[in-house]
Amino acid sequence: MIPVFSGRHVEAAVSPERALDAVRDAFVAYARGEWTMPPKVYVPAYPAGDFRAMPALGGGHALLKWVTSFPGNPAQGLPTVTGLVLLSDASNGMLKAAFDAGAVTALRTGAAAVLAAETLGRGGVAAVIGAGVNGRAVARTFVAHGRRTLLYDIDAARAQAVAEELGADAASREDAVAADVVVTVTPAKTVVFEAGALRPGQHVSLMGADGPGKSEIAIEEMARVRMFCDDWEQASHNGDLAHAVEAGSVSRDDVTQLGNVLAGTAAGRCSDAEITVFDSTGLAIQDLAIALAALERAGELDLPSIDL
Amino acid sequence: MIPVFSGRHVEAAVSPERALDAVRDAFVAYARGEWTMPPKVYVPAYPAGDFRAMPALGGGHALLKWVTSFPGNPAQGLPTVTGLVLLSDASNGMLKAAFDAGAVTALRTGAAAVLAAETLGRGGVAAVIGAGVNGRAVARTFVAHGRRTLLYDIDAARAQAVAEELGADAASREDAVAADVVVTVTPAKTVVFEAGALRPGQHVSLMGADGPGKSEIAIEEMARVRMFCDDWEQASHNGDLAHAVEAGSVSRDDVTQLGNVLAGTAAGRCSDAEITVFDSTGLAIQDLAIALAALERAGELDLPSIDL
Repeated sequence: MIPVFSGRHVEAAVSPERALDAVRDAFVAYARGEWTMPPKVYVPAYPAGDFRAMPALGGGHALLKWVTSFPGNPAQGLPTVTGLVLLSDASNGMLKAAFDAGAVTALRTGAAAVLAAETLGRGGVAAVIGAGVNGRAVARTFVAHGRRTLLYDIDAARAQAVAEELGADAASREDAVAADVVVTVTPAKTVVFEAGALRPGQHVSLMGADGPGKSEIAIEEMARVRMFCDDWEQASHNGDLAHAVEAGSVSRDDVTQLGNVLAGTAAGRCSDAEITVFDSTGLAIQDLAIALAALERAGELDLPSIDL
Repeated sequence: MIPVFSGRHVEAAVSPERALDAVRDAFVAYARGEWTMPPKVYVPAYPAGDFRAMPALGGGHALLKWVTSFPGNPAQGLPTVTGLVLLSDASNGMLKAAFDAGAVTALRTGAAAVLAAETLGRGGVAAVIGAGVNGRAVARTFVAHGRRTLLYDIDAARAQAVAEELGADAASREDAVAADVVVTVTPAKTVVFEAGALRPGQHVSLMGADGPGKSEIAIEEMARVRMFCDDWEQASHNGDLAHAVEAGSVSRDDVTQLGNVLAGTAAGRCSDAEITVFDSTGLAIQDLAIALAALERAGELDLPSIDL
């Protein structure tokens, strides 16, 4: 009997604060080589979207997330991100649990965005650009962490509704991009930060670009700031960094992995004036962190199960 | 609500004959480029075993199989092969069904072994070496196809029990390896066919070697026969062929993909005396064929479901 966590069960099992701690530990374990992760595999079904198979190994478990990105889905009343996370015992291969992939992805994306902002940014006001499922999760994590949080979306009514639900403040685009720490969670079809847009001391977590043709920042702007990423292999192939690497304006030595900063083996922000930018593509080790945190609470929830 | 096919439901939904037809069509569609498949990804958890994430795209669907190989599991009363197959709609990414991976793997492995034997072998007696879950599936498929089938296992009682269940004949190792068509479904820790072991006209389907350190045939024997495989990329990296390619005794031009023979774009057996050997590593497109065939029957089965 394999317990199944629906989206509601995942949210009930893992708070934003617990997710933040779990994802921090996962980045450190990955930086130390204790947790490992083959590159994610894309299965293209363009122009509609794509599927990703994301495996990870750590904490005595192996994980596979089968998850989508279909940006046109919301117009049909369907989620952009959907699928299942499967968690198995690494000692004998037996399945331990399954989880709604959308809920796990939202929690860990929120956690990574805020973790990077807390680690690399300065204090002050946070802003989230994009109030979809993952943008909502980022804002929820900031609010849980005690930050004043602005929220902007191209759909003002959506931003207003999500802000009210979470205790954030709906804001103009202008105010949002000028905040002390900014998190972009957009479809990444158009750039949010053009060349010269960022001001000294700002931090940005770029969460939206995770595949071909997507970017939230201009190549020139990346060359001007301190760049960080979740994982060089992934970000240099599928993140905002991919465009700068292709253009030859950024190379491996210019970019620091967040996990190395958290593990104390690389420097983070070096001055108040520095602009720090975190390029996230989303790592399976983050999903593993959330799945393990949820599994700890399995006994307290009334979970349905499947019998193979 | 996503229907879940347990092992019992998969067997009820897809007969060995239906599996054979579905897998044949999948090989042809793959050879024609209509169905596609990124390479499978291994997640190592050695020495106990490994996990594989196997995606495929075809027939309007995307599939991911998360499946194990833990050869020591049966000694603990656990299956060597376990996991889940996830089937999604390629037009919008939504999950359509989940399936027991062990049952899907057994059906498609049986189908591929027999398909290769029927395509590349001559008539006569079939033999299956190894009476585990997948060996049983191969023997079941031969019997369903009307072949007289010998079955050998290092555990004679197991071979006897499976043979009686299926209407096959338990046989000595000597008789099995001398049959007209032979299928090996062993843990591939030791070679079944040493140099010079095969006789003119025989066909062998090698199903056991699908990862590092595994082989069922000597390198010298591969250089002496007509070699076929399911997929060059996979077989040359993780099949029996990997050892011969590494040793430099076999190269791409020496090996024909089964799908090309079935699609009529490559020659199969060219003479009665030729020895033909099929190296199988197992393809996600085969799993996709079984999953789609099972889904056709969903309405006739009383399937449990999960609600995300």
